[in-house]
Amino acid sequence: MEVGITSAYSLKYELRSPKEVWEMIKEVTEGVLTKVDKGINKEEIDLVIVSNFSDRFGGLLHTAPLVISYLGLNNTKGFRVENACVSGGTALYLAWNFLRSGLANNVLIIGFEKMSHLPSSTEVNEVLMLAGHPDEVLVGSPFVSLYALIATAYMSKYGVKEEDLALVAVKNHENGLRNPLAAMQKKISVEDVMKSPYVSWPLKLYDSSLITDGAVALILSNKPREYTDTPVLVKTVTMYHDHPGVFQREDLTALRAVKKAGEEAYKNAGLTPKDIDVMEVHDAFTIAEILVYEMLGLAEKGRGVDLIRNGVTTFNGEIPVNPSGGLKSKGHPIGATGVGMVAEIYWQLRGEAGQRQVPDAEVGLVENHGGTGATSVVAIFSR
Amino acid sequence: MEVGITSAYSLKYELRSPKEVWEMIKEVTEGVLTKVDKGINKEEIDLVIVSNFSDRFGGLLHTAPLVISYLGLNNTKGFRVENACVSGGTALYLAWNFLRSGLANNVLIIGFEKMSHLPSSTEVNEVLMLAGHPDEVLVGSPFVSLYALIATAYMSKYGVKEEDLALVAVKNHENGLRNPLAAMQKKISVEDVMKSPYVSWPLKLYDSSLITDGAVALILSNKPREYTDTPVLVKTVTMYHDHPGVFQREDLTALRAVKKAGEEAYKNAGLTPKDIDVMEVHDAFTIAEILVYEMLGLAEKGRGVDLIRNGVTTFNGEIPVNPSGGLKSKGHPIGATGVGMVAEIYWQLRGEAGQRQVPDAEVGLVENHGGTGATSVVAIFSR
Repeated sequence: MEVGITSAYSLKYELRSPKEVWEMIKEVTEGVLTKVDKGINKEEIDLVIVSNFSDRFGGLLHTAPLVISYLGLNNTKGFRVENACVSGGTALYLAWNFLRSGLANNVLIIGFEKMSHLPSSTEVNEVLMLAGHPDEVLVGSPFVSLYALIATAYMSKYGVKEEDLALVAVKNHENGLRNPLAAMQKKISVEDVMKSPYVSWPLKLYDSSLITDGAVALILSNKPREYTDTPVLVKTVTMYHDHPGVFQREDLTALRAVKKAGEEAYKNAGLTPKDIDVMEVHDAFTIAEILVYEMLGLAEKGRGVDLIRNGVTTFNGEIPVNPSGGLKSKGHPIGATGVGMVAEIYWQLRGEAGQRQVPDAEVGLVENHGGTGATSVVAIFSR
Repeated sequence: MEVGITSAYSLKYELRSPKEVWEMIKEVTEGVLTKVDKGINKEEIDLVIVSNFSDRFGGLLHTAPLVISYLGLNNTKGFRVENACVSGGTALYLAWNFLRSGLANNVLIIGFEKMSHLPSSTEVNEVLMLAGHPDEVLVGSPFVSLYALIATAYMSKYGVKEEDLALVAVKNHENGLRNPLAAMQKKISVEDVMKSPYVSWPLKLYDSSLITDGAVALILSNKPREYTDTPVLVKTVTMYHDHPGVFQREDLTALRAVKKAGEEAYKNAGLTPKDIDVMEVHDAFTIAEILVYEMLGLAEKGRGVDLIRNGVTTFNGEIPVNPSGGLKSKGHPIGATGVGMVAEIYWQLRGEAGQRQVPDAEVGLVENHGGTGATSVVAIFSR
């Protein structure tokens, strides 16, 4: 059975959206329905999966029946899923399983988060921390500090400098300049990153992804060619987990869940890393993107840093990573993030990515993870 | 393919638990694993579904990988689902679909909520309200006021009095006296209910379910007889939706989602209401239980009240409803509620319900709904 994406729609990500969450959701729901090439009746949507992290980021719970009522209350079923920053990837994982087993025929995924709902970064951080291990929350470790432990271990083990990490931020901001959906369209230099204030040594403000408002919707079908002549096919979606606590891990410089999800994804798709033309990966912090290179087999352990040093993953490089600008420049509205990554690959493989189009992209990969990698979803798509 | 429940474990529901949420979850996870008749290795659990309403009720997010790490980080996958008060029913709906389509073989469901995490009922109510329609939240209508509208319409249309509604509370408190898991073991009279303060006319304090802390776990399998000689079989699980806003409904005295879910459940199971020996239904407010009688075909429209007047649904009646004490006396820890209803039917059909055992119960039904009925899940089980 062929499973494919038949439509994608995203609001521009914003640091502070003037819209109410329910407005944002209605807008992407209407938008994604109108973007199906051959059209779709809303009655044909038989499953709605909502991806949202916390009701403190938007003030909505029990959102699926709201959307279903808005669609006209046909026989659609729906629910919300949450898996921290990989809520969107989890929605995709469920949609894929429902579609390929015939439990649903057309799935609408809606990812949203309005982080500016809370008045300060401190309060936002308090909510984000709840996705960590309770023992880490207990001692007050925010994710930037946990990723700082990982970065320190990586730098110390492999002779990597802060300037190397900065290159990831510079690349993704460069990419974001070409993406009208990006929340922060701002060119930055390594010097800018180095001058930005430390949040948790060695990670600085410019090593960190953005607190963002956003909403994105996708439609997936198990008869995609009824809706478009150019669907983006889902080859596989895999999910793996790691111990949530960084203190529980044997190797601080590995993201086990990403590695296992990637290995299974390549195997299921019958592909190798060399077959991938474009990737969207989870650059919550600059160090994360470098580790993901290694976990996904783009480089040997400890040598992911060479890819960013040598420009391999830049927009014009051998394998462009995060042409959207990534979480760093496009933004990271938690529940929308993974859904937005899939939307980007959809546009890339359809040749609809405008100024940020990767030429002749035929196979794309999404890696979305949560916490410091306690859950990772990897998906491979082809046109 | 046969899908069955192979184990259930619940903490005693409490108005204010002294335990931290993570302790509660660990306790039910360990408990449910030890309660499998023929034993189960934790490596055999291949899917964990967490049911939790709000991170404000317990302070945990991204809970599935915590549990999976605790189980030993095998190839188990996991995520959290949320559908307001029917999060537990939704977890069951997903487990049923994953198991019957072979996407998983042994599913662990964990439902939890620690509502005493917030310091006051006012703050609890502010969170609960987010499960309503945004327009109802906007004008500040809590669920008790929305159910009061429904109760008023029902009373006015069918000549029903407050004393009739009170009978539901009296019955469920009587039942709760026999349940050691119930949060409020207190016999009450119609007079007690009538003397209790109005929360939103005509609904009084004693018409309302309890703000409760609780955690419950279940294991379901698609080869249940490998784990027990007396599994409780899942005949069907159905889900339907209604407009979330009471103001959007054509008939205030109907719960469309419950009716449709019930009709489909009976059809799928090849059964009629007369075949059901015991039921656990969603008595969030007394009026809800009476409407559910009608929606599930136990009585004609407007005549559900006769069942409670005539003792048909009492413990010794023709069809005992909520032998556990229901949300009214056992309690309503949102994310745990639906999971706990299923646990109760599991014990009833296995003849393990102690003092509250319904004699010779062979077929049981669970009805769990959210909001004022925007989502309903109905499940039918047999021994």
